[in-house]
Amino acid sequence: MSSVFSFGSGVLVAGQIGLDKRVLGGKGANLAEMARIGLPVPPGFTISAGECLAYLDHGRASLDRIRDEVSAALGLVERATGKTFGNPRDPLLVSVRSGARVSMPGMMDTILNLGINDATVTGLGQSSGDERFALDSYRRFIQMYSSVVLEIEHGVFEAALDRIKEDRGVDEDIDLRVEDLRGVIATFKDLVLAHHGAAFPQDVQEQLWTAIEAVFRSWDSPRAKVYRRLNDIPGDWGTAVNVQAMVFGNLGETSATGVAFTRNPATGEKAYYGEWLANAQGEDVVAGIRTPQYLTRAAREAAGARLPSMQEAMPKAYAQLAEVFELLERHYRDMQDIEFTVERGRLYLLQTRSGKRTAKAALKIAVDMVEESLVDEVTALLRLDPASLDQLLHPSLDPNAPRVLLGKGLPASPGAASGGVVFDAETAARWAELGEKVILVRHETSPDDIHGMHVATGILTARGGMTSHAAVVARGMGRPCVAGTASLKIDPVARVAEIGGQRLEEGAFITIDGSTGEVFLGELPTILPKLSGDFATVMAWADKHRRLKIRTNAETPLDCEMARRFGAEGVGLCRTEHMFFDESRILAMRQMILADSEKERRSALDQLLPEQRTDFRRIFEIMEGLPVTIRLLDPPLHEFLPHTDSEFTELSRAMGIDVEQVRHRAIELAETNPMLGHRGCRLGVVYPEIYEMQARAIFEAALAVTAEAGKAVFPEIMIPLVGMPRELETLKDALHKVAEIVFTEQGRRIGFSVGTMIELPRAALVADELAVSGEFFSFGTNDLTQTTLGISRDDAARFLGAYVDKGIIAKDPFVSLDIDGVGRLIEMASRKGREARPDLKLGICGEHGGDPASIAFCEEIGLDYVSASPFRVPIARLAAAQAALTAA
Amino acid sequence: MSSVFSFGSGVLVAGQIGLDKRVLGGKGANLAEMARIGLPVPPGFTISAGECLAYLDHGRASLDRIRDEVSAALGLVERATGKTFGNPRDPLLVSVRSGARVSMPGMMDTILNLGINDATVTGLGQSSGDERFALDSYRRFIQMYSSVVLEIEHGVFEAALDRIKEDRGVDEDIDLRVEDLRGVIATFKDLVLAHHGAAFPQDVQEQLWTAIEAVFRSWDSPRAKVYRRLNDIPGDWGTAVNVQAMVFGNLGETSATGVAFTRNPATGEKAYYGEWLANAQGEDVVAGIRTPQYLTRAAREAAGARLPSMQEAMPKAYAQLAEVFELLERHYRDMQDIEFTVERGRLYLLQTRSGKRTAKAALKIAVDMVEESLVDEVTALLRLDPASLDQLLHPSLDPNAPRVLLGKGLPASPGAASGGVVFDAETAARWAELGEKVILVRHETSPDDIHGMHVATGILTARGGMTSHAAVVARGMGRPCVAGTASLKIDPVARVAEIGGQRLEEGAFITIDGSTGEVFLGELPTILPKLSGDFATVMAWADKHRRLKIRTNAETPLDCEMARRFGAEGVGLCRTEHMFFDESRILAMRQMILADSEKERRSALDQLLPEQRTDFRRIFEIMEGLPVTIRLLDPPLHEFLPHTDSEFTELSRAMGIDVEQVRHRAIELAETNPMLGHRGCRLGVVYPEIYEMQARAIFEAALAVTAEAGKAVFPEIMIPLVGMPRELETLKDALHKVAEIVFTEQGRRIGFSVGTMIELPRAALVADELAVSGEFFSFGTNDLTQTTLGISRDDAARFLGAYVDKGIIAKDPFVSLDIDGVGRLIEMASRKGREARPDLKLGICGEHGGDPASIAFCEEIGLDYVSASPFRVPIARLAAAQAALTAA
Repeated sequence: MSSVFSFGSGVLVAGQIGLDKRVLGGKGANLAEMARIGLPVPPGFTISAGECLAYLDHGRASLDRIRDEVSAALGLVERATGKTFGNPRDPLLVSVRSGARVSMPGMMDTILNLGINDATVTGLGQSSGDERFALDSYRRFIQMYSSVVLEIEHGVFEAALDRIKEDRGVDEDIDLRVEDLRGVIATFKDLVLAHHGAAFPQDVQEQLWTAIEAVFRSWDSPRAKVYRRLNDIPGDWGTAVNVQAMVFGNLGETSATGVAFTRNPATGEKAYYGEWLANAQGEDVVAGIRTPQYLTRAAREAAGARLPSMQEAMPKAYAQLAEVFELLERHYRDMQDIEFTVERGRLYLLQTRSGKRTAKAALKIAVDMVEESLVDEVTALLRLDPASLDQLLHPSLDPNAPRVLLGKGLPASPGAASGGVVFDAETAARWAELGEKVILVRHETSPDDIHGMHVATGILTARGGMTSHAAVVARGMGRPCVAGTASLKIDPVARVAEIGGQRLEEGAFITIDGSTGEVFLGELPTILPKLSGDFATVMAWADKHRRLKIRTNAETPLDCEMARRFGAEGVGLCRTEHMFFDESRILAMRQMILADSEKERRSALDQLLPEQRTDFRRIFEIMEGLPVTIRLLDPPLHEFLPHTDSEFTELSRAMGIDVEQVRHRAIELAETNPMLGHRGCRLGVVYPEIYEMQARAIFEAALAVTAEAGKAVFPEIMIPLVGMPRELETLKDALHKVAEIVFTEQGRRIGFSVGTMIELPRAALVADELAVSGEFFSFGTNDLTQTTLGISRDDAARFLGAYVDKGIIAKDPFVSLDIDGVGRLIEMASRKGREARPDLKLGICGEHGGDPASIAFCEEIGLDYVSASPFRVPIARLAAAQAALTAA
Repeated sequence: MSSVFSFGSGVLVAGQIGLDKRVLGGKGANLAEMARIGLPVPPGFTISAGECLAYLDHGRASLDRIRDEVSAALGLVERATGKTFGNPRDPLLVSVRSGARVSMPGMMDTILNLGINDATVTGLGQSSGDERFALDSYRRFIQMYSSVVLEIEHGVFEAALDRIKEDRGVDEDIDLRVEDLRGVIATFKDLVLAHHGAAFPQDVQEQLWTAIEAVFRSWDSPRAKVYRRLNDIPGDWGTAVNVQAMVFGNLGETSATGVAFTRNPATGEKAYYGEWLANAQGEDVVAGIRTPQYLTRAAREAAGARLPSMQEAMPKAYAQLAEVFELLERHYRDMQDIEFTVERGRLYLLQTRSGKRTAKAALKIAVDMVEESLVDEVTALLRLDPASLDQLLHPSLDPNAPRVLLGKGLPASPGAASGGVVFDAETAARWAELGEKVILVRHETSPDDIHGMHVATGILTARGGMTSHAAVVARGMGRPCVAGTASLKIDPVARVAEIGGQRLEEGAFITIDGSTGEVFLGELPTILPKLSGDFATVMAWADKHRRLKIRTNAETPLDCEMARRFGAEGVGLCRTEHMFFDESRILAMRQMILADSEKERRSALDQLLPEQRTDFRRIFEIMEGLPVTIRLLDPPLHEFLPHTDSEFTELSRAMGIDVEQVRHRAIELAETNPMLGHRGCRLGVVYPEIYEMQARAIFEAALAVTAEAGKAVFPEIMIPLVGMPRELETLKDALHKVAEIVFTEQGRRIGFSVGTMIELPRAALVADELAVSGEFFSFGTNDLTQTTLGISRDDAARFLGAYVDKGIIAKDPFVSLDIDGVGRLIEMASRKGREARPDLKLGICGEHGGDPASIAFCEEIGLDYVSASPFRVPIARLAAAQAALTAA
């Protein structure tokens, strides 16, 4: 089978039709498709992604089998353009670009202007009639090729260029004259010789093949691997390579280049959206070297910008572009992200793809397109990325909070974030690991910053536009981002920044608002987001199509309220231990733990009873009419004790007992593997009085809410860490005994059920026996993953990364359910459980309950509900609908 | 169905025939059986064990349904004896004794002489013609009843009795006169009133029923629970109660009492063995209050004792007893343990049961009985307790070692043990938990000492004979014991002992030899045991009948040699990490761990290579012709680093690197849950160079041994902690690459296989996929139990005891395989694995490999081998034979 596929204006080859992104990559497939429907695409060819994998496995030798095909395809491009590759008179220049199955913006390498050498540069000057352009292209090519292929540090050339500009007394590249550029080229070639140990290659075939190899290699670059891991992209896809005739946006003022979206990717508004620059090449726009201009007059006016829009400056080319927008959106039935170049008034399309968008925009576009009858409801629903809803749901700045505005940049990715400023990705990662919130502050971000951006709560850059690297990546990650903040001065070496007269040392707190572009001093209070009508519309669609119920993991009234607002249909996991860390209670909790006898323990528990009862009352009230699953105390007792000597002293003083007694008890309770230690129902078995107190609090609260407020309450009491049927039986009996006592005391009764977490492999294995007394199962997939895989979540960071990088696992099993392992146990337990008790209620309450892929699995095996953190409830609603639609 | 079953001389009731120990308990069933075959058994009746459970569940009310039956049965006893219960003229006295399905010596309560009160005591004196006897019986009864039923501290009566003896100027109870005894009784009754708040009950029916209740309750006493846990006796068996007419061994010099074995329970020698006392009641012998006399003349002469044997003192009764011995041994086809009483020359049998015996005796008896054609080989084999072989295999004292003999007692339980002396069970338990070896030193042990005896390496008592509590329990546990060491003086309050002029403070080291009764100062060196011909005979029987292969877990040449001597058929688990803790290697290991780069790591590993190669050479040589399974490095790296500041400093000095770097790396490597952390094949994935070094060492050693020594070597390389098929594939590939390199270097090849531990639930779940590359599975049941049950072995002590006590689990799952949970996974993995690879070799290498019940499971599911620690290899051989015979 062929591995090289031609495309583009003037080239007609049957081969590529019907081939999809898996072979051609996204860029290649769409270039071929655009050419096929008659759009102006410069001719070129795509080398399939399979060749990338062959190259990575077998090295350079694998290239031999495609040399003839490439040569033939290049011949077609020469014929279509009338130029010849390497011809000193009228040379063909090409771009060599990566193109994976899905877009990985900025992750892999691109080389432009390939085919220039000392001979062809003259021909290029003559054929273009612009010697300065030819020399500048050569300069750019040496710089880009040396960086990407020869791996010479980019800064080497930047510094040399800066020196020459200084010598000549000019500020901008564009001010360099022909003579200056000759000097730059000579200097660059010297630098190549010095750093590479060989001269800059003059053979254009050598240029081409080494560039193809470099693109192949870039698939396995560290930053690409990180990106793949973060975005669940398998390593065995590979990238295609697109070799395409160059068109030039930098051939004077009738030339231009730009990127555009058919709708606004930030808001979803149905209005063309984009940026362009006259007399520029593509990378000038995306790399943020020059601040680009607005595409439409409306956008320019709205921003109060001075420089003309493309609509104003190049009305004819703009009109043609607008037609293309309409055509492509109808063709692909989705909002498109388009790269174009105008060469001396003539429009060329270099790329189209479904445009990345904010969650807000995705919702609006979905609702609008259904209204426009462009797509149907199910298609619209399936196209949404549930995880992206996260962006919409997080708090924004409280408008009434006093604030000190430091400056303003571009609103590049919506949402508000606070954190200490850090000036490099490494520091961001290190601080974040220590639990610090950080804002990554950079001149501009590059793919090397990906890991720092991932851990940052927000990103602030001094340069770059709305489509700069920082902006695109931040939107994809759902991180708030303010870009192109001109008033921001950064000294990364001294680790200090200045903005609005405020000096910011590393660690100084700021707040950014990615929806307005504002930067504030300190940490500002936030408020809950107002959800748009589009959100409600989409959620209503989702609710119509889903089968799974969605509950929430919540234990505070605030979280319960929020979850209910987000559509939670009950509490799936109320972790009672969180309630004891409150300052007013921790002392009684510690007294309980330090007690020498059951009597002392009971007396401390008596102090906790009214507090715990109040907790449950509030939750039952908020969750009126909905089931509330309350998990009894789960963590090992030592988690409630202090750990340092000074804390021991403090506690011993507060409690009036000997410090040695405190220390001794803390040491006595310490565990080698707390995850597998004395916790969960094991506490309930050894200290029955703890669960008795909790049960009493639940029953008393439920009775009070029912009687006083007349509200319906459905408590489901959940026993954690059960592995043996007798544990559940014994503890269920004990709970029923407490219930009878309380019901007798109060002369009223209430319905309740008792069930168990399934979070140990053994529980899944004996699920039929557990279902005899257990009235519901809730899969605690966090712990079930830890025990089934034998991986401590707290310690996994040391090797899970290597596992993903080496292709041993596809995804972090703590983020997305390990279906082949843990999933098999869940399925087994569900089946066995329902065999023993056909009406057994089944749910999942681990963090996987908010993960779309895991939700799809829950749908498939017929669970009754998933429970997710409040902010993930809407995600779960959408994912559940998608799962039901896909399964149907 | 009836719950009360009569038995004994003069009573003929059909009911009990055919009922077994599950209903009647061991004592009751055997009493009924002895009566049935015509032996002189005092009449009585048994209340079934089911009534015990009913009483423990429902309390006193449950007794109502048996009142009529008990009354009728008591009537039969009255008719048979011609005496009447509570009759002031000629009162019937009874004993009320527990009797569980299996013997639990001393664990539950017994009350003798019941039926005496102020009125009947006179009648008893008249009917027996011995007023002193009647009063002494009343005194004993008040004391025993008050202790058992009224739960008045035993010492209260002892102290009062001592005061009275002092007053009267007498030393022994027997020297108290009638008048004195009247005073004792009055005093005892006052004490009851004072401590119990009510008078000693005069109503004999009340005495009877409260005694029955007390025996029922004693089933759930703490000491009984501990015993059950240690001996795997289920809590839901309950105990039967035997009520039997009293006969009296204390009616003067023509009366006697004793306990006897039909063969020697320590050596197995075919010679009657036992102890007796004239004019005594049974508890005088077993409680060690008076030092008893030998049963036979031969035994007395061999011991050089002065007091006459029963054979000499009561030749007629002795001859009758010897006839009974022969009859019972033929009847039960096993060595019997018999309790008897001679009342005024007339022999009565109070109990028979299969006698507990040392392992050595068990072997000899088995071989002898097969030779005597009393039982066949299979019966003899099935009757042996594999676990007891442990006793035979441990080292004994090196006869050439210099020694300081401190004193000598009775050789009560064979084997040698050293440890620090402790004077109470609590201290023993506490010290043992800290890893100290202790010898429990007591005047005499009681059932309350069980937990201390269990943790002690040996037991030394000052009083009591060969059938004393200490001796019986120690033999059962396989603990060396020296009993009745008259020269030992103990002051338990001051925590000091004296023997042979040597003062022993708590913690002072001594050595006891339970085979000779000697006590030595300090810790003496030991040597390997010589195994008897009986051992070889039994092992040969076992090997003939077993299907499972037996391998060993061993990594030192010493262990390998020992295991081979014990019959190991290969190494099932060679843990390579143990090899690195050697002083000469730990430094290189630490250098490897502290290395900053792969290069530095490789250089440290280069230093370890020759050492590791030598390790494997030795093992291959010893294991010539047998397979050797080598597990690659498993524990987390931090296990090889020091933990304290001073150790950090030392290490940094030794390695010439900064102490902060050492500390930092140690902190960096520390883990929250090391059991689930960066260990096993995860090390191999992240640091491939470690496994590469180990593989090279294996291949080079194997080639060397084959070539130089011409010995056959079968290395099986085992990858630990695999959970994902790609882990195994990746690492297997890497091992094969190393193999090819080494084979090419040396120009020779060797066969080897690569397999995996199955020790994570996920591995079992995806076993079919693992079997694609894995050539064998070895179930690492220690870790598989930890992960399946979610129980850290290191932390389980805090709750597993409570779990067994509360009946939540039957056995410690780390000792005996959890068949319902872990077993299900093993079965699943075996089945799936063999489906994918029919010739997959399957074994087990956790500590369960030496546990008979677990071995039975391995036989059942068709594993190929079990691997046990060297000392447990013979146990495994026997257990495997039993499993095969039982399964067949």
